[in-house]
Amino acid sequence: MNKSDDISSFFSPKGVAIVGASQTPGKIGHEIVRNIKLSGFSGGVFPVNPNAENVLDLKCYGRLSDIRAEVDLAVIAVPAGLVEGVVRDCIEKGVKAAIIITSGFSEVGNKELEERVVSIARRRLRIIGPNTFGVFYAASRLNATFGPGKVLWGKTAFITQSGALGLALMDWTTEEKYGVSSIVSIGNKADVDDADLVEYFSRDPSTSSILIYMEGLRDGRKFFEASRRAVREKPIVVIKAGRSARGARAASSHTGSIAGQDTIFTAAFEQAGIMRAEGMTQAFDWIQALNENPVPKGENVVIVTNGGGLGVLATDKCEGLGLKLAELPNDLKDEIKAITPSFGSVKNPIDLTANADDVLYGKVLDIVLRRRDVDCVIALFCQTANIDPILVAQAMLDARDRDILEKPITAAFVGGHLSQVAYSRMLEKRFAVYPSAERAVDAMYALMARHRQLEKFKGGGELR
Amino acid sequence: MNKSDDISSFFSPKGVAIVGASQTPGKIGHEIVRNIKLSGFSGGVFPVNPNAENVLDLKCYGRLSDIRAEVDLAVIAVPAGLVEGVVRDCIEKGVKAAIIITSGFSEVGNKELEERVVSIARRRLRIIGPNTFGVFYAASRLNATFGPGKVLWGKTAFITQSGALGLALMDWTTEEKYGVSSIVSIGNKADVDDADLVEYFSRDPSTSSILIYMEGLRDGRKFFEASRRAVREKPIVVIKAGRSARGARAASSHTGSIAGQDTIFTAAFEQAGIMRAEGMTQAFDWIQALNENPVPKGENVVIVTNGGGLGVLATDKCEGLGLKLAELPNDLKDEIKAITPSFGSVKNPIDLTANADDVLYGKVLDIVLRRRDVDCVIALFCQTANIDPILVAQAMLDARDRDILEKPITAAFVGGHLSQVAYSRMLEKRFAVYPSAERAVDAMYALMARHRQLEKFKGGGELR
Repeated sequence: MNKSDDISSFFSPKGVAIVGASQTPGKIGHEIVRNIKLSGFSGGVFPVNPNAENVLDLKCYGRLSDIRAEVDLAVIAVPAGLVEGVVRDCIEKGVKAAIIITSGFSEVGNKELEERVVSIARRRLRIIGPNTFGVFYAASRLNATFGPGKVLWGKTAFITQSGALGLALMDWTTEEKYGVSSIVSIGNKADVDDADLVEYFSRDPSTSSILIYMEGLRDGRKFFEASRRAVREKPIVVIKAGRSARGARAASSHTGSIAGQDTIFTAAFEQAGIMRAEGMTQAFDWIQALNENPVPKGENVVIVTNGGGLGVLATDKCEGLGLKLAELPNDLKDEIKAITPSFGSVKNPIDLTANADDVLYGKVLDIVLRRRDVDCVIALFCQTANIDPILVAQAMLDARDRDILEKPITAAFVGGHLSQVAYSRMLEKRFAVYPSAERAVDAMYALMARHRQLEKFKGGGELR
Repeated sequence: MNKSDDISSFFSPKGVAIVGASQTPGKIGHEIVRNIKLSGFSGGVFPVNPNAENVLDLKCYGRLSDIRAEVDLAVIAVPAGLVEGVVRDCIEKGVKAAIIITSGFSEVGNKELEERVVSIARRRLRIIGPNTFGVFYAASRLNATFGPGKVLWGKTAFITQSGALGLALMDWTTEEKYGVSSIVSIGNKADVDDADLVEYFSRDPSTSSILIYMEGLRDGRKFFEASRRAVREKPIVVIKAGRSARGARAASSHTGSIAGQDTIFTAAFEQAGIMRAEGMTQAFDWIQALNENPVPKGENVVIVTNGGGLGVLATDKCEGLGLKLAELPNDLKDEIKAITPSFGSVKNPIDLTANADDVLYGKVLDIVLRRRDVDCVIALFCQTANIDPILVAQAMLDARDRDILEKPITAAFVGGHLSQVAYSRMLEKRFAVYPSAERAVDAMYALMARHRQLEKFKGGGELR
């Protein structure tokens, strides 16, 4: 049995016990039971608390050993001093995985207790945490966290070393319509670490990309080796905080991590084929583009815009990021010229001008998407008086549906209320859409980076 | 009479004629009349069209000379071939300023016609355009554009060389609650150029910052000299598109601009004290921070957060941008320690942890804002289970109200629906708030850059 099999009980358990379940709303031990109950998890749910008859209408057990049914996952939310005993109970009961929510371990200097707990568990019980807000896994409808009850399902596994940030992002992904296949609050990484999770998610059919917020690593070699294998299957995007000297100190007082030399991390990420994002916005932009699009088959980028200025800004950004704007062949130019206003540009960016309507926009997208000498399209939209953003959004969605050559498209919508409505609608339809030209280009950059990576693999080569 | 006096009729005219007014909704000559009428402009409004009796219930005149009342601004929306004659009519009537909406001039290669029109007007009639969507000026309640009828009033004069992008941003600023004091679609800059406008807005009491979207300059020396003077009064932020070779080509086919060597622009912007933003998002982030805050009096930055991870990300960004995180003196640490949970950090970033509530958040902000050894505060918020974002927003707003030392504050709200509501409320209350830690830091960077600039001026020195 290999390691990733070892940790499957965190995600697809048959039965979950919540040790330290509480009847009091607002308490962590209550919220976790509530979230598991409401998320639609189909396995057994067993609150454990010697002082309660039931929690949220679920029969409550005095001890783990009182439960007759199989329990393979325990969520532990008891005071730090009681954790050791509960871990022993888990082993006795045959529990395979424990999420230790409790804080007060290595993150506050209490390394000894943490090591003792791990050494008790070793080889019999895998541990996520301590000091975590839990695990969400969409495919099992399991929300074993004290975070928001409502999470939007999607394709990204999100691993976070920061609790508060992770909780906030859990809410944020739902609000912004970015779905997740899983969220793991990795806590102190006393046992299960980023490497284990990367390996697991690289084989998880419900996950198509992996996003990590990381402050430090205990075992760099293990992580980079796991990642090097995993990126052959799925893209990995990392936000590595603590890149500056001062940031590293802050990380150290936050999670007790040794952030390490940033230049070494940068080199190692690159070598392993991990995409390092500068911050949250960029990371989610990239992930969205990677999730909602096929990977481009070549380097030829075409920009279509109804605003010349947006086209220029996008061109600057493309050049800055090393994206190659295709020189359009004459027959393509002629085809576009035949239907665009006389003062539009048929160079690349293709500028349809502010006079363009959604019909023209859709036609030009069709022309471009049909070409084998075009590999991907950045579609930019400026709201002007004579065009309805919602119709343009529909035109883009329709063009994507007709895109039988499976080219990636990223889009930007700039404008007022109607543009926002159009933008939201496109997000809902899982279109990689952004509120500025720069971000739509940066998102395409992520897709191109993935293309280049896959080309190297095709060549049989290792990434280097 | 100096130049900026010359152009005041564009912004505060006594009477406006719309030459080429139309009865047909959707036509540019109709939309402009409608916008002027609906914006609440108190001067005379005179549609001119020989084939109409009235437009939108306003009496319509056959020619400019038929109007008895004073007309100092004409908005010209007739076909290109008729513009020359209308300009002659303007001069005859004593009009001082003309906005030529009409396109089909130098931007499509028709330089001769453009030069002829300008030479007729020279010294008697100032021209904005041709090829513009018009001028909005909040203080006169004048919306002489064919853009959106509703524009949010604020403190920034926005000058745009791109029509479609400008129109889209006009809508966007309202949707995003960024107000503008003026929007000028500068068009082909045949006469009035960026330099004239920078000079005018530097003295305009309703404007406190200037934002320019620029593709190229005809008279660089004039612009940089005007800006060098203007930045002593108000910050200027520029988005200069066409920075890449390919982008410059796109700019050339878009507005016929010669984008010029980008490195020369970069140096010249810096020398003139102009802040160059990388794109729209950054430009508006900076402008918002500059508009809604006093300038810091020193370099000491303090970060307050309830999420350690956000604190680390912000610290990295600060260090990347050369913002100095203050070393907190012991008495300040003690004061904070006395009220924060034991496992919070009283280093800088001050981490109140996910257990913080709005009351604690407000108290810590008060402590920090009262200190003379703190110059500015970056307040970061992560939505977690036990804290109400709307109360935190209120705590931040209250702390700002009590901030008698007038320190700048930028904030970030990361979370779900309630965080978005809190964020919107803060924007409405004119608080410089952002959806990510990085952007809140970048906004503070703009304020610090302005501080450093003003310090140089104080020293009697020129910027260099």
